[in-house]
Amino acid sequence: MNNTMKPMGSIGFVETQYLDLHGPIRLDSGRELRDVRVAYETYGTLSPERDNVILVCHALSGNAHAAGSAKTAPEASARDGFGAEDRDGAQGKGLGWWDGMIGPGKAFDTDQYFVVCTNLLGGCNGTTGPSTIDSATGRPYGPDFPVVTVADMVRTERAFLDALGIERLAVVAGGSLGGMQALEWAVQYPGQVDSIVVIASTHALHPQGLAWNAIARESIMRDPDWQGGHYYGTGRKPDAGMGVARMVGHVTYLSGPALTDKFGRRLQFADDIRHTIVEPEFEVESYLRHQADSFVKRFDANSYLYISRALTYFDLAREHGGGSLEKALENVKARTLLISFSSDWLYPPEASDEIAAALTNLGKPVENHLIDAPYGHDCFLLEEARQTPLIRDFLSRKMAS
Amino acid sequence: MNNTMKPMGSIGFVETQYLDLHGPIRLDSGRELRDVRVAYETYGTLSPERDNVILVCHALSGNAHAAGSAKTAPEASARDGFGAEDRDGAQGKGLGWWDGMIGPGKAFDTDQYFVVCTNLLGGCNGTTGPSTIDSATGRPYGPDFPVVTVADMVRTERAFLDALGIERLAVVAGGSLGGMQALEWAVQYPGQVDSIVVIASTHALHPQGLAWNAIARESIMRDPDWQGGHYYGTGRKPDAGMGVARMVGHVTYLSGPALTDKFGRRLQFADDIRHTIVEPEFEVESYLRHQADSFVKRFDANSYLYISRALTYFDLAREHGGGSLEKALENVKARTLLISFSSDWLYPPEASDEIAAALTNLGKPVENHLIDAPYGHDCFLLEEARQTPLIRDFLSRKMAS
Repeated sequence: MNNTMKPMGSIGFVETQYLDLHGPIRLDSGRELRDVRVAYETYGTLSPERDNVILVCHALSGNAHAAGSAKTAPEASARDGFGAEDRDGAQGKGLGWWDGMIGPGKAFDTDQYFVVCTNLLGGCNGTTGPSTIDSATGRPYGPDFPVVTVADMVRTERAFLDALGIERLAVVAGGSLGGMQALEWAVQYPGQVDSIVVIASTHALHPQGLAWNAIARESIMRDPDWQGGHYYGTGRKPDAGMGVARMVGHVTYLSGPALTDKFGRRLQFADDIRHTIVEPEFEVESYLRHQADSFVKRFDANSYLYISRALTYFDLAREHGGGSLEKALENVKARTLLISFSSDWLYPPEASDEIAAALTNLGKPVENHLIDAPYGHDCFLLEEARQTPLIRDFLSRKMAS
Repeated sequence: MNNTMKPMGSIGFVETQYLDLHGPIRLDSGRELRDVRVAYETYGTLSPERDNVILVCHALSGNAHAAGSAKTAPEASARDGFGAEDRDGAQGKGLGWWDGMIGPGKAFDTDQYFVVCTNLLGGCNGTTGPSTIDSATGRPYGPDFPVVTVADMVRTERAFLDALGIERLAVVAGGSLGGMQALEWAVQYPGQVDSIVVIASTHALHPQGLAWNAIARESIMRDPDWQGGHYYGTGRKPDAGMGVARMVGHVTYLSGPALTDKFGRRLQFADDIRHTIVEPEFEVESYLRHQADSFVKRFDANSYLYISRALTYFDLAREHGGGSLEKALENVKARTLLISFSSDWLYPPEASDEIAAALTNLGKPVENHLIDAPYGHDCFLLEEARQTPLIRDFLSRKMAS
């Protein structure tokens, strides 16, 4: 079959579904989580052999709505990559965050594959997280929610797929924190994953990335409205601190040149400066405020803290290799596709190169592609056209073999 | 005289002095500031011809104490460049922020020159700023302090030097915002400046730099303890927001590789992760908290807002050239020395290159040096040994001519 010539289609309308897991999830911390609910969406048709499943994993602020149009458009879309709003316009508000990559004829082709996306453990979009009611107390977990790791997220995905009767995965794919989950799958369940697609990701975030995440969390926790994490039901929530956290995150997701191209030093409201401290003055200042305001409406601050912590903890070499990345990857059986972007300074290409080198040294099949693109880390949400042929080629070689 | 062979000495103990200006300062905003006091220090001896004056201008968080040891050690030194505390140890707490550059036999040689450093307008270390009592009301200005620009800072420096009976400057020198002041001097008072030394600076901060500064200001202004700027005397001040602002600033002053070299992903308190959200876990997280805590003790939040705003407004081409940098620099008479650092992503070498190109096109004397060094923007405070010969050579050629 010629994968590249088929016209691309849309998933159409989809609705997020929910599944309650029967058993508890055993966590890295030693604690257990009971009564875990998982929000998910599926696209395409499960083959009778159940061998065509792609698990798509989302990043920090994503959710289970990866593709198609939501039946009820959310207040603000998770499709908030740089420029995504410009491109989609109002009608795009309900589009999944990776709609350009998932659908008939797209990179993850729903004519061939059964694509599953779950909201991750600790999230705030349907899967159990800090804002969920703890059945033991009748109140939201808040800061009593156990600290979860990427490995715990993957264990939850494993338990969820068990409940769906899916044992093997043809592909686990994701960008950023989603790519960490794909790597963790390949390490934790080597016999159950045929291929992983790891985009704009890393085996361990670099120290500057740790710093940005620490600053974002500090900003939330220093907001008095955070109230030690017990803000649910108080009528107050740490929007001020969350807004600043989002601004920090947003700038790290973009490249400097992209900000220059989009905004330059243009003033927002007048031909000349107005000598104001409190009002935004430059276009980029207004843009950041807008990003902050729309984010706090759709995302829970405690979830942000927990997920940010999980992605800074993630460290394949420490967790699985006693400090050696190669040792950590020793048991991987999946074929690996790595994609990184030249302007991504938060998850830089060097991290993918290190993974590729370790796998190559181990004699394992790996493809490592660097895409020269200007938008920084957000490229994984934006550069669909250039990722698509790489992914389709990688997957088609497997199908043919 | 052989400048390069002389042993370097120390300024010894110095005390900050204060001078009250007689006339008002007319500001870019159209407002006037009366009763302006200027904090300053001087090093070396004024020549009978008053032709050996170097004005040194400080950056965002600096003060008038540029060199020597303070008689009374401040609570926390402004000498807070990356690693400065490590190098100086406890005894260095009272050292001026550019002590490595100013003194007998140093880059700015006090055996030859009379070096003057003032705290800038809007600051919080002795010169009139938002925390100063407004004589018209008997209360601190707070947010009623007029918004000041780099040009206003330079006007204040001009008025201060008038009061000292100093008309011409042999050199105006500074790094970062200090370099902006040097450039502004050369443009605003072309007949009164022989040379400028502009280090790790720019003619206009790039949009990502605008973004970081906007985030820092937002963090302060969103802290409820900021109280619209009226926090003086309330027993509360926006330490939480200021701390986050400082963390953001601090990471932008360093390079990613410098953070990796210094901290890596080392854990602070244990051999393994402790599964904690609220406690710092990585060394870099503890370091940032320490930076935040020490900064809020020594710096006023309103001053931070005003100075951050001034440096984002600064734009030589817009202010003086109708959008053209070359036109803005048309009347410059000073010789120009530019120094930038390869790893400085906040004030990148490209900005210096643009200034050099414009001056060269105008046929004006300019030297442009790029120092390959790993510490980011803070290099201007740290790489004294490599800046010194460039500055001494540049200045000696003038002395010889």
